Amino acid sequence: MAQVGETGVSELSIAVMGAGRIGALHTELLQQRVEGARVTAVYDVFAESACSVGSRFGVPVAGSPEAIFDDPSVDAVAICTSTDTHVEVMIEAARAGKAIFCEKPISLDLDQVDRALAAVARAGVYLQVGFNRRFDPSHAAVRDAVASGRIGDVHLVRITSRDPEPPPIPYVKVSGGIFLDMTIHDFDMARFVTGSDVTEVYAKGDVLVDPDIGAAGDLDTAVIMLTHENRAITTIDNSRRAVYGYDQRVEAFGSGGMATSANPLDTTTVVHDASGGHGSPLPYFFTERYIPSYLAEWQAFVDAVREGAPSPVDGMDGRAPLVIGLAAWKSIREQRPVLTSEFG
Amino acid sequence: MAQVGETGVSELSIAVMGAGRIGALHTELLQQRVEGARVTAVYDVFAESACSVGSRFGVPVAGSPEAIFDDPSVDAVAICTSTDTHVEVMIEAARAGKAIFCEKPISLDLDQVDRALAAVARAGVYLQVGFNRRFDPSHAAVRDAVASGRIGDVHLVRITSRDPEPPPIPYVKVSGGIFLDMTIHDFDMARFVTGSDVTEVYAKGDVLVDPDIGAAGDLDTAVIMLTHENRAITTIDNSRRAVYGYDQRVEAFGSGGMATSANPLDTTTVVHDASGGHGSPLPYFFTERYIPSYLAEWQAFVDAVREGAPSPVDGMDGRAPLVIGLAAWKSIREQRPVLTSEFG
Amino acid sequence: MAQVGETGVSELSIAVMGAGRIGALHTELLQQRVEGARVTAVYDVFAESACSVGSRFGVPVAGSPEAIFDDPSVDAVAICTSTDTHVEVMIEAARAGKAIFCEKPISLDLDQVDRALAAVARAGVYLQVGFNRRFDPSHAAVRDAVASGRIGDVHLVRITSRDPEPPPIPYVKVSGGIFLDMTIHDFDMARFVTGSDVTEVYAKGDVLVDPDIGAAGDLDTAVIMLTHENRAITTIDNSRRAVYGYDQRVEAFGSGGMATSANPLDTTTVVHDASGGHGSPLPYFFTERYIPSYLAEWQAFVDAVREGAPSPVDGMDGRAPLVIGLAAWKSIREQRPVLTSEFG
Amino acid sequence: MAQVGETGVSELSIAVMGAGRIGALHTELLQQRVEGARVTAVYDVFAESACSVGSRFGVPVAGSPEAIFDDPSVDAVAICTSTDTHVEVMIEAARAGKAIFCEKPISLDLDQVDRALAAVARAGVYLQVGFNRRFDPSHAAVRDAVASGRIGDVHLVRITSRDPEPPPIPYVKVSGGIFLDMTIHDFDMARFVTGSDVTEVYAKGDVLVDPDIGAAGDLDTAVIMLTHENRAITTIDNSRRAVYGYDQRVEAFGSGGMATSANPLDTTTVVHDASGGHGSPLPYFFTERYIPSYLAEWQAFVDAVREGAPSPVDGMDGRAPLVIGLAAWKSIREQRPVLTSEFG
Repeated sequence: MAQVGETGVSELSIAVMGAGRIGALHTELLQQRVEGARVTAVYDVFAESACSVGSRFGVPVAGSPEAIFDDPSVDAVAICTSTDTHVEVMIEAARAGKAIFCEKPISLDLDQVDRALAAVARAGVYLQVGFNRRFDPSHAAVRDAVASGRIGDVHLVRITSRDPEPPPIPYVKVSGGIFLDMTIHDFDMARFVTGSDVTEVYAKGDVLVDPDIGAAGDLDTAVIMLTHENRAITTIDNSRRAVYGYDQRVEAFGSGGMATSANPLDTTTVVHDASGGHGSPLPYFFTERYIPSYLAEWQAFVDAVREGAPSPVDGMDGRAPLVIGLAAWKSIREQRPVLTSEFG
Repeated sequence: MAQVGETGVSELSIAVMGAGRIGALHTELLQQRVEGARVTAVYDVFAESACSVGSRFGVPVAGSPEAIFDDPSVDAVAICTSTDTHVEVMIEAARAGKAIFCEKPISLDLDQVDRALAAVARAGVYLQVGFNRRFDPSHAAVRDAVASGRIGDVHLVRITSRDPEPPPIPYVKVSGGIFLDMTIHDFDMARFVTGSDVTEVYAKGDVLVDPDIGAAGDLDTAVIMLTHENRAITTIDNSRRAVYGYDQRVEAFGSGGMATSANPLDTTTVVHDASGGHGSPLPYFFTERYIPSYLAEWQAFVDAVREGAPSPVDGMDGRAPLVIGLAAWKSIREQRPVLTSEFG
Repeated sequence: MAQVGETGVSELSIAVMGAGRIGALHTELLQQRVEGARVTAVYDVFAESACSVGSRFGVPVAGSPEAIFDDPSVDAVAICTSTDTHVEVMIEAARAGKAIFCEKPISLDLDQVDRALAAVARAGVYLQVGFNRRFDPSHAAVRDAVASGRIGDVHLVRITSRDPEPPPIPYVKVSGGIFLDMTIHDFDMARFVTGSDVTEVYAKGDVLVDPDIGAAGDLDTAVIMLTHENRAITTIDNSRRAVYGYDQRVEAFGSGGMATSANPLDTTTVVHDASGGHGSPLPYFFTERYIPSYLAEWQAFVDAVREGAPSPVDGMDGRAPLVIGLAAWKSIREQRPVLTSEFG
Repeated sequence: MAQVGETGVSELSIAVMGAGRIGALHTELLQQRVEGARVTAVYDVFAESACSVGSRFGVPVAGSPEAIFDDPSVDAVAICTSTDTHVEVMIEAARAGKAIFCEKPISLDLDQVDRALAAVARAGVYLQVGFNRRFDPSHAAVRDAVASGRIGDVHLVRITSRDPEPPPIPYVKVSGGIFLDMTIHDFDMARFVTGSDVTEVYAKGDVLVDPDIGAAGDLDTAVIMLTHENRAITTIDNSRRAVYGYDQRVEAFGSGGMATSANPLDTTTVVHDASGGHGSPLPYFFTERYIPSYLAEWQAFVDAVREGAPSPVDGMDGRAPLVIGLAAWKSIREQRPVLTSEFG
């Protein structure tokens, strides 16, 4: 595509950087199911990973990041590398004038995030952070019920977010811990649903699933209470192991009613016998549950970049959940409610 | 109570005739949970039954039907005797000027029904037939969705009506068979929901639950298709044995939408594990499921008698389902659709 | 009844003390729908209230509390007076050797509770505190899923408890505030479901429903986090005004699964149109929702007293939620998590 | 692919014949979302349609059917042309030794179906008929509950199948009418779920949606009762206009329980207000509802052809519903139950 903003005859050319699980998924979706986009390069520090993804989805492999940044035909980059490299890649991409999609979290370090966002601001490029759950139709409908005034002023939000199984311990160790790795999605959801920033955080957690997680300095079970600027109170509960599948629910309660999203099920089938009705399991994990959200996330990206529209998940939306997560960790350490303003 | 129609300071005095299972239930509900009524006598040909019910619920036992009919303080009689005696009791009650509640069916013989209704008409007394399901709040809400125009013109009605277990074979033999004993409630529901009489009946049945039912000349599994005057088509399916409990559902589909009633459950609890969600059983049978309908049925009776209002389930409502049931049996025998007009 | 514990030929004779809304309700249920019990006296400081209840349900009115305590034919007393009188009545009833049912909370003052419990202990009488929700079949089934091991070790509990409308301001002022008046039921539920005492309380609240509640020194919206001895974490959220009705849900999540209770609905009817499916409202408030729990509560009382069995909701079960409630208020004032051990 | 049955290194090469709505859909799914297949040619008598589909999905356009049949690199053909041409195309494809996928119905004429099936049998090629709903996970789970014995012997089946809007009148005129165009899917479902052939058909129908449908000699509202060889009774109800969306439900009731499939919803979101809970609309029509079934249908095709496995929906499965449909029309004309054996 020649330019951002022109009405799109040509397709948006996207380079995927990082060919791990999430990079491969984005490549597949962009190549096959998103209108108006085409993956024109894939890169990974492990050439083998890039080659594997490239051959599966018919995408040329780039020999270096520079090959991508220097290629004027590349409109956008999708940053799917490991978290500790996001900032440097983002800064390079911004300098190169590329529209940017960056997986969450931008960084585990707030100063680094600020460096990256400053570079994006200077370059004036488009940035969208990968909080895909905003694009889930069911959660989005809860938010719409708030944003439209359908349920009045929002007073209470409840977010249930439970994984089916913990990540590997080596990953746990570099992940920033449960609040920056897992709950960060829920922090974003709390801001998204209420339309309001978070002022105070109180967190409580424990190691009830796997002692190795505790030995790695992390928690596997947590409850977090957030107070918003608009005085709504959000409660989040997390577990790293829900044996019944990926449990993802949002509830917003307000002066005019309540809106809830529930878990979709694998099938609608129910078998009834003398012991009761027996329904279907939940989707196992995010690749089973959230594909529609990834598709909508990418469609929003492609449409916004092509139309020159503002990002639905901009840099500040990427930064705020990190602050909340850091406050949650401080709350755990100090056993008290922590103000987000303590993080400047 | 001195007179029907006066604003009720005094309570309606009701005599219950027949102290079997349903008579005992009506006595209990009237004594304890219906406003504005009092059971002032109970009678049964088996004095022991009457005494048992009388002592349990604090009701005097009448020594004979005449003692009831001749007692001017008795306002109303509830006919809960065996079906073959309904007509004679009703004629006597009508002569005595009592308001009448009669359990369904009025009779298995259409001529006898007509005799009873003629006596009621001559006496000008109130008559309400015991089609309690009309008063179930969930089914009634389906009917209201039709009657109010909420779902437009009604095109299709589906009624599922399945018992948890068959009645005893001796009862089967005198019951009039599945269509007059069990489906008769569904025939009434079809008329109630659509607000339209039935013109044609096609029935198909089999013996799939218990061969003894077949040996008794009856069916235990049936599907019946009804065509209404307003061109709606109702489908009813029956089984004498649903292992998961008493299955009672109504669905009305129209030009403007659909209304459905589902089965209530014993609890709202769901247990989720790796195999899915596991809900609660259904109520076992009518005494578990339909108490609210009996209460509302009696409240409607008491209120209508006291206010001189028309009966919500009058003699013609008692007669019509019998005609449909006789047509269903004829359809089974002749393997063809049968017009209700064939019954004059 | 002559003696507690004998197999019950005669009925348990219960005197109801306090003829306000809840006293009237208990009288009605005991008189009409509980097996093995009979209300033999009703008393209220306002004789008119006692007379009104007495005449409606056929119960003699006692002229004084002493007339009840001194009557050897009275087996049990139901204390339904205003909260500030519970303790004195309980002490008198204990001295008189009566089995005791006491509405919650026993008192707003912990020392007073201890005085009352000491009197009960000295007298060796039966005491059951009115936490009726334990007897709700749906919540009880959640607890059973935990107690039976069906969902493994319990990690997280969520209780939603929202009233349809706030109480009158004069009542608010003497109620002990939201935590002692409303949430106290949820504190009991948390102990009941987990089977474990609470060690730590963190509470957050606001006035979002009605500023007059704030002016009265109370909150109308609150979230409370409880840590249990067994390391489970319970989250409770409360609002004094849910426009959609009385919202009462419990969820227990454990290592082996999850159990949830949902709100029953007025009907099972759903109307479908182009905008979606439209279901029935919730029961409006506790008298619509919790009648089955009151009935089961009373049946448990009657059965336990007659059989000499232990109370399912004993004095310590009445005391513990008060401590949690006091800790919640302290947490609000001091903006920190509070240990229940701070209350001795 | 060189040969059917070899373990698939190479992809199955499929030519799509007919580039209308369904041909375009199959091309899209095969190109983008089915493993192990590739569309290598598309043909349509209207070259423009073929070109449009070809360019959208990157598929070469064939100049003639012969170009496809004569191309040894084409492994399979997907027959998506108008119904009246199916038989001739199938015969040519069979002669050419291609594996065949044919959209339903094979033909409206039973003799023509038999001609086509004879050609397929002679050539020994693979044939799969496009009854995609068998592959819907929810309906398939109902069938599994029957086939596995989970619900015992099947006694009653209920199929609800309602379109959101009628097809255009010109299409109605050549469609074979509601039973051969719309209900044919349900006839297949009845055989699939019960695992048993149909012996008798009784149908009742009316024109309640659009008088133009009646003027075209067709019905728009119908109820059909099927008797199976295993004595199960299936009831199907159809409407050409459900204002609330595409209503597709299956229920199987047996001696050991019941299995039901319900409609998926656009979202799981429910908004609660004082009037009740308000859920999401249904998917609008088959392209919104049944994509997963088309994908599974194609995966089954590709896997079976590559492995030399039998077809899950073979020629007899294609023929039987046509016989049922013809019997349904005869039942309408003659107003009586019709045996399928009347069709030889």
